[in-house]
Amino acid sequence: MKVFNPFLTALVLLIACNQNQHSVPVAGSTEETIVEKEKSDVFYHYSIWYAFVNKIFEGELTAKELKERGDIALGSYNLLDGELIMLDGVLFKATEDGKVTRVKDDDKIVYANAAFFDVEQSFEIKEVDNYKSLREKINEQLPSKNIFYAFKIHGDFKKMKCGGLNKQDKPFEDGLDVLIPNRPVFERENFSGTMVGFFCPEFIGNINVAAYHLHFVSDDETFAGHVMEFEAENLKVEMDYIYEYQFAVPRSPEYLNGNFENEFQYKKK
Amino acid sequence: MKVFNPFLTALVLLIACNQNQHSVPVAGSTEETIVEKEKSDVFYHYSIWYAFVNKIFEGELTAKELKERGDIALGSYNLLDGELIMLDGVLFKATEDGKVTRVKDDDKIVYANAAFFDVEQSFEIKEVDNYKSLREKINEQLPSKNIFYAFKIHGDFKKMKCGGLNKQDKPFEDGLDVLIPNRPVFERENFSGTMVGFFCPEFIGNINVAAYHLHFVSDDETFAGHVMEFEAENLKVEMDYIYEYQFAVPRSPEYLNGNFENEFQYKKK
Repeated sequence: MKVFNPFLTALVLLIACNQNQHSVPVAGSTEETIVEKEKSDVFYHYSIWYAFVNKIFEGELTAKELKERGDIALGSYNLLDGELIMLDGVLFKATEDGKVTRVKDDDKIVYANAAFFDVEQSFEIKEVDNYKSLREKINEQLPSKNIFYAFKIHGDFKKMKCGGLNKQDKPFEDGLDVLIPNRPVFERENFSGTMVGFFCPEFIGNINVAAYHLHFVSDDETFAGHVMEFEAENLKVEMDYIYEYQFAVPRSPEYLNGNFENEFQYKKK
Repeated sequence: MKVFNPFLTALVLLIACNQNQHSVPVAGSTEETIVEKEKSDVFYHYSIWYAFVNKIFEGELTAKELKERGDIALGSYNLLDGELIMLDGVLFKATEDGKVTRVKDDDKIVYANAAFFDVEQSFEIKEVDNYKSLREKINEQLPSKNIFYAFKIHGDFKKMKCGGLNKQDKPFEDGLDVLIPNRPVFERENFSGTMVGFFCPEFIGNINVAAYHLHFVSDDETFAGHVMEFEAENLKVEMDYIYEYQFAVPRSPEYLNGNFENEFQYKKK
């Protein structure tokens, strides 16, 4: 016999009311937005590339907050103390000494791109000699150059060359236009891993890196960084189409009063 | 004597659970985001200026959907069939014949900027001779040129000159770089009304109108359009600081396959 239990009804209603909702605090503020996490298909971006290039090297976003904005990401930590890569919700840091570590929830992030990754298109590539060749093969698959894409690309790497970042101290002397061409470089051969990143249309201008931007982490979590060059086999390219883009600017005095003049782009089209 | 009523408890819990939340459908998709409407402080932008300049004159956003993204807005309707202005949640259309009408929920929008307006700073100006003079006075008040602002500016207008749009038919021949310099112009003297609009930092590039962009609607709802020039008294300038910016691109074949080459900016700094 079924008995109507009003207490149970109240509980069920409350649970139903809260399911799929997730509290997403806005960085550096007390404001709060409720996002249906699983269905969110927004390119989330913290700070802007133009500010990052021009020595805005401290942000207010925490690792915990970034995880609420996506399960894949790339970026950098405060003071350029490591390249940031998130794969399947696990956030890594690759520091200037070449070490890769998992990240604590309260670690501060200066710059990040993130998204909740859904595979909307995938294809395999038996072999590519270099990064340019991969981009050409992906370019053939893009349904439009006027939208955004997220990528997860797993493969066996004969060679991988990744860039790191040298930790900076205040007062900051050089911007990324100087630091990136002089970045630490790490190389490894014959191992497997995943490239994670994004494609932005050219109209993104100085707000982000135009065209392709990929970071990498090895399967064994001991090698990671900004993808510079590689030779690879058995690549599985997974793509997510993104039609909405959201960015949040820092609220620090350095950002608010900054005069951004230097430009830098990777130009990986 | 108080009696515990479990049915009432369930109802109260449900109401508490739903308060301040608002279902926001994403234009042109079945995805859904839940936003705490009252606390949302995001610059919402539908389509991009670059596409709009380059003849993407049909959008998928409805008037109803736009109202879920803000209570002030500016923009245009599909086929350039009128300038769009939203003031205090009321959405108006100013067509090429000079008429101003309230808008139906299913009217389609090709381009819009919107925000939920909260006054964070306000000041009064006794008299301004022209638009440039107003911008100079506001520029003195902006705490930063690196964030976004929304404005509501009510006043008594000795003169107001507003631009309209001529409705276009397919195939579209001219972009905004041709249409705006040849737009219909409407003038009126000695009446009151409100200018509504936004300031974007220079780094916004081709994504939106850089610097100031204001639309206008008269108190009597009979005169509206894009603010070109004016002379005014008793201005009350209300400003909202915005640190987050979200844009959604159209999903039409015309947008996805578009080659955007022509640039146009109002340059109202």
